Amino acid sequence: MNAGVSQLKTGPLQSGTAFDSLAGLIRPRSVMIVGASTTSGTLGHTTVQNLIEHSDFNGQVFLVNPRGGQWQDRPLYTSIDDVPAQEIDVALLLVPANSALATLEACAAKGVRYAIVFTGGFAELGETGRQAEQQMLALAARTGMRLYGPNCAGMTMLSPRLGLTFSTEFRNDGRNNKLSRIGLVTQGGGLGRSLMQGNERGVCFSRWFSTGNELDLDNADFIQWLAQDPGTDIICTVIEGIKDGERFVAAAQAASRAGKPLIALKVGRSDFGKRAAQSHTASLAGDDVVNDAVFSQYGVIRVDDLDEMLDVASLLSRVGVQFLRRLCVYSSSGGAGVLSADKVGEAGLTMASLAEETVAEMAKHAPSYAALTNPVDLTTKALVDPQLASKCLLPLFNDVEVDAVLYPITSNYAASTEGMVRNMLEVAKQAKKAFVPVWMSSRRGPAHELLVAEGFAPVYSLRNAMQALKRINWYAEWRARNRDRGAKSADFSGNVSVAQLPSNEAQAKTLLMQYGVRSPKESQVQTADEAAMQAQAIGFPVALKLVADGVLHKSEIGGVQLNLWNEAQVRQAFAQIMTAARANGVADDNIRGVLVSEMITDGVEMLVGVHRDVVFGPILSIGAGGVWVEVEADVARCRLPADRTLLEDILDSTRIARRLASYRGLPARDRSALLDAVQNLVALFLSLGDQAQSLEVNPLVVLNNGHGIVALDAVIE
Amino acid sequence: MNAGVSQLKTGPLQSGTAFDSLAGLIRPRSVMIVGASTTSGTLGHTTVQNLIEHSDFNGQVFLVNPRGGQWQDRPLYTSIDDVPAQEIDVALLLVPANSALATLEACAAKGVRYAIVFTGGFAELGETGRQAEQQMLALAARTGMRLYGPNCAGMTMLSPRLGLTFSTEFRNDGRNNKLSRIGLVTQGGGLGRSLMQGNERGVCFSRWFSTGNELDLDNADFIQWLAQDPGTDIICTVIEGIKDGERFVAAAQAASRAGKPLIALKVGRSDFGKRAAQSHTASLAGDDVVNDAVFSQYGVIRVDDLDEMLDVASLLSRVGVQFLRRLCVYSSSGGAGVLSADKVGEAGLTMASLAEETVAEMAKHAPSYAALTNPVDLTTKALVDPQLASKCLLPLFNDVEVDAVLYPITSNYAASTEGMVRNMLEVAKQAKKAFVPVWMSSRRGPAHELLVAEGFAPVYSLRNAMQALKRINWYAEWRARNRDRGAKSADFSGNVSVAQLPSNEAQAKTLLMQYGVRSPKESQVQTADEAAMQAQAIGFPVALKLVADGVLHKSEIGGVQLNLWNEAQVRQAFAQIMTAARANGVADDNIRGVLVSEMITDGVEMLVGVHRDVVFGPILSIGAGGVWVEVEADVARCRLPADRTLLEDILDSTRIARRLASYRGLPARDRSALLDAVQNLVALFLSLGDQAQSLEVNPLVVLNNGHGIVALDAVIE
Repeated sequence: MNAGVSQLKTGPLQSGTAFDSLAGLIRPRSVMIVGASTTSGTLGHTTVQNLIEHSDFNGQVFLVNPRGGQWQDRPLYTSIDDVPAQEIDVALLLVPANSALATLEACAAKGVRYAIVFTGGFAELGETGRQAEQQMLALAARTGMRLYGPNCAGMTMLSPRLGLTFSTEFRNDGRNNKLSRIGLVTQGGGLGRSLMQGNERGVCFSRWFSTGNELDLDNADFIQWLAQDPGTDIICTVIEGIKDGERFVAAAQAASRAGKPLIALKVGRSDFGKRAAQSHTASLAGDDVVNDAVFSQYGVIRVDDLDEMLDVASLLSRVGVQFLRRLCVYSSSGGAGVLSADKVGEAGLTMASLAEETVAEMAKHAPSYAALTNPVDLTTKALVDPQLASKCLLPLFNDVEVDAVLYPITSNYAASTEGMVRNMLEVAKQAKKAFVPVWMSSRRGPAHELLVAEGFAPVYSLRNAMQALKRINWYAEWRARNRDRGAKSADFSGNVSVAQLPSNEAQAKTLLMQYGVRSPKESQVQTADEAAMQAQAIGFPVALKLVADGVLHKSEIGGVQLNLWNEAQVRQAFAQIMTAARANGVADDNIRGVLVSEMITDGVEMLVGVHRDVVFGPILSIGAGGVWVEVEADVARCRLPADRTLLEDILDSTRIARRLASYRGLPARDRSALLDAVQNLVALFLSLGDQAQSLEVNPLVVLNNGHGIVALDAVIE
Repeated sequence: MNAGVSQLKTGPLQSGTAFDSLAGLIRPRSVMIVGASTTSGTLGHTTVQNLIEHSDFNGQVFLVNPRGGQWQDRPLYTSIDDVPAQEIDVALLLVPANSALATLEACAAKGVRYAIVFTGGFAELGETGRQAEQQMLALAARTGMRLYGPNCAGMTMLSPRLGLTFSTEFRNDGRNNKLSRIGLVTQGGGLGRSLMQGNERGVCFSRWFSTGNELDLDNADFIQWLAQDPGTDIICTVIEGIKDGERFVAAAQAASRAGKPLIALKVGRSDFGKRAAQSHTASLAGDDVVNDAVFSQYGVIRVDDLDEMLDVASLLSRVGVQFLRRLCVYSSSGGAGVLSADKVGEAGLTMASLAEETVAEMAKHAPSYAALTNPVDLTTKALVDPQLASKCLLPLFNDVEVDAVLYPITSNYAASTEGMVRNMLEVAKQAKKAFVPVWMSSRRGPAHELLVAEGFAPVYSLRNAMQALKRINWYAEWRARNRDRGAKSADFSGNVSVAQLPSNEAQAKTLLMQYGVRSPKESQVQTADEAAMQAQAIGFPVALKLVADGVLHKSEIGGVQLNLWNEAQVRQAFAQIMTAARANGVADDNIRGVLVSEMITDGVEMLVGVHRDVVFGPILSIGAGGVWVEVEADVARCRLPADRTLLEDILDSTRIARRLASYRGLPARDRSALLDAVQNLVALFLSLGDQAQSLEVNPLVVLNNGHGIVALDAVIE
């Protein structure tokens, strides 16, 4: 399943070819329901009703139930074999877990192309279920029949309507509200249904795929399908686990190429969530910092909660992808205006400077005591005179300095608020500019319903509004930077192939040197006399370090002595290191000697590492190095391969990167040499193939501009 | 107004004596409405109705209107002078701004004790309004009549009902919902009214003071009053500006002594907000990092938005102040359970380990496929069998490992959800344990209404729930640490009184030495020869630094040379410094020489500073020092005076503090000497009195344990 783990592809992903077209699943000509029931209230009954009575479905329907029976003028076949068809696009399975495999066998024999298995009780319950899933998967591989589920809520399309689901809720979905051009892919049904109820606040997903345990078809398949669906502008996904990192990335790239934002909520982020996820689904939750890095690398908008997903999706679907940085706050409460301005500032956004003509135009209508600078405060006059709100809104929309109008509605004053909102929506609906109503009251009312009906999904707090704007600006920025970049990869060809992993620091550094990454001047010695002599040759000050097989963190056992300024200090340090090594149980046979090294004092200490992630394959880490790595927690990551521009972006997303530039009289450091070293270390790691799980250079000291870098320590495992 | 600025009190605040009892305002025996009207729909009419028809008010009511008239059997007096009373507790003024002063004169003459001025159009509109306010304030000072407002929405009490307000909304406040024992103080009416509508989600403030421009009575007066009000457990305030830092602190301390959490939303935090606040009210928004520091010092729970205030206040009012760290997540959706566990982990909280007997008890009722570890997932079975939800909830409440049960409700399934919630509330209402329902759907419904009616205010997202829990845990921690600390202050008596501020680094360091804060061994020289000689005496390596009047940031003009290892380097560095000084326009007359200093290389670079904040007076800053102060942005602050324990807390809230402890073989630093130095620097600053605006030592190097600290640079201004 997991191509990212077992092999590394260094070229662009071959995304197109990896995906099924899904045509027969999405627009089936024939559907068979196995477990159809004539007993009202059962899942088998609601599923048939959903398809026959609540969908715009004109294809063939076949109902199967071992007990037989009749649904209006349709027979219920007692066996799949009896179904009078040569081929069936989709079969829906509502059967007990222990008969699922046999039912699937019969489906395959009948020429079913896609089997949706609603039935639960598989991998999510443990080992027996996992084994059953493996048998189902083998069947699919053997027959070519694709599986959807098991343990899933099916799929619902709202235009045209097609409900391949057992949920009665489907019947109400989108009946009374404007459909949004947003598609949704979730694994579980619970969170998906919660999002579907977003139609009560103006976000009505037009497609929903609930993929369950994702035994065969997974969220990448449906993201890929939505990317090319003409009815979809925005894609949302709730991910409980990514089974195949490479296919997920390919799907994300497909969305990106289609110009469609992909918004993801990753469930199972924290350790607590991960543990729970393992009991809930069969997915690997992955290392969350890696998820973060990969999502941001490929332009996936990561959100933290369901309501945030609704906020971001709705706003993007209304205004498209654009920068929404310069805000105008428009209110009828001075306090709300100031609070909004606070939030704008705290979010790193800007309060727009209004043009003189904008203010002049508002002044024609507003009362003298209104505040016509940003934040605009029309005072409660706007509640009394609803026309006022729209007359003053229009010039704000026409002001080129304004990217978006933020409209905090603090309280619901029934008809007054409704009148104001109705007038404003008349203007907002015509405008191309972003209009962000923020419903700050706990009391809903007619104005709220009006916003919902018109698809202007209200955001429920200023902090949520800012969060959504930050996400959208992040994405607009990502898109601007990546539009012409494509999937270029660095050239890693022609690398030295290494037979064996280095087993100590000296060997590791020799290997580094072959890849152009230099270490301090140093010399390995066996005695204190040799150490003193070599120190003289290298030049003081020097450092002494233990060289011993199997000892990775030398400083923790007293194996490192720094800042030695003369021969006497060197001799004493040598003796101390030997004593410490023995005191810590290092066997004499494993002690290879002591390294005498040039001391590198003036530079910026970085960490550069590569490791193999179980989901996404090789991951590069760059950040603040030295002893304080864990305390600083200042490391950025990306998936490989990565071109130079991406490496620069990753580096610049760390705090430590600011220390590489010239600052207050301090010299600039050799940033370019650092990036060269990163590329060389990546090449080295990749040349080691599967035998290497990780490579870490820490500290890697970046010297002054023109002087390059020095790797002070390296561990390859 | 601003005692904090003009003088520093080093003893505990004399809070009790600074506040009016407000008895005549809160429970008036007589109320006069000036601007009363018999015309329906006017503010003068609704105000009279609010008092006579919608309040439980048995005192005397006097109505005044220059045009006279009749309200049922009451006369409208044409003049205040005609009112047949010797003394009146409260007068409500609905008069034009330009007649406010004359009206207040008449009120004072009539013996009015408190005048609530609804009228706007004063300081919030500019200079003319500010002058009018000063006249009103002078009148109050002269007559002893207290002013409330102007530009305010008045005050509303819901038990017993008393509406001294012109808002028709008052009539519905709390009519249909359970009152919460939470009091509210806001300046503006808009944000206050928004919070009052919180009763639609189960948070019904029983007292609300909207204090407007706070010309005389301000939010501190009402916080202080609520602190001793037996009907109030929790105090909420929205602050647009703090005019008197000392009184605000005294009110916060009163709340703390009364055991009542004080929750504050500070409006005007960001630069954008501050600018807007100046046009909206007449308040100083203050330096927000100082607000943050002072709030956390005195246990004020700072929230970021209105909905967060409702979340925190509601939960605190239900469960009191306690740690809510070990959560049990209880759901009927596996996905929601995992997502909740994520949020718990990300918030730094813990998923409780359930006791064996808890799991066994749940197992008696739950289906075999339910997950009975934390997160507990009863699956959709809980929707079908509402008894199940309550049967499994009880053992969780009884488990001592569980501090709170988090109950994510992903979707509204009408009667099913209602049945489940109803059964759970039966258990939750009896329990002492925190029960946190999270309503994650956009669709409200009968279950939502049930939660609201029972006062279990649902939180609207997991992220909001975590934020509220974090705030509550922060407060519980603050209270535990501060319970026995009181307002102890360090002893700053017996300090040297200094006649004049130092005008250069050498003078500053001499002053530091008098306060026990040592600088590097150093010597001021005039020539390169002297420099070389002194360097020899001090010992290599040395640093050279320009000494010149008026030059504060020497390194930026090339006035500092470090790491000089021999006499030749010292001579060359001396010449370079002189050349740089002249090239940067430093006059020869201002050059006092060059300091030759001991180089301090091995230590942790800190910053210690004190400055005078316009609202809160002297503020201490401690944090990461050196060249990278701005980049690190790792500075914590507190208001002075501060005892040693508080200094430790402040220090420990910085990241750099972790570098003072022993770590991975690195030695521990002299933390105790650092704290001594901080106390000494505070004493020095305070001894300088008003002439000093700030003192900054950066870097202050903390050496290894037992070796003390060294101040490398000091600026006193």
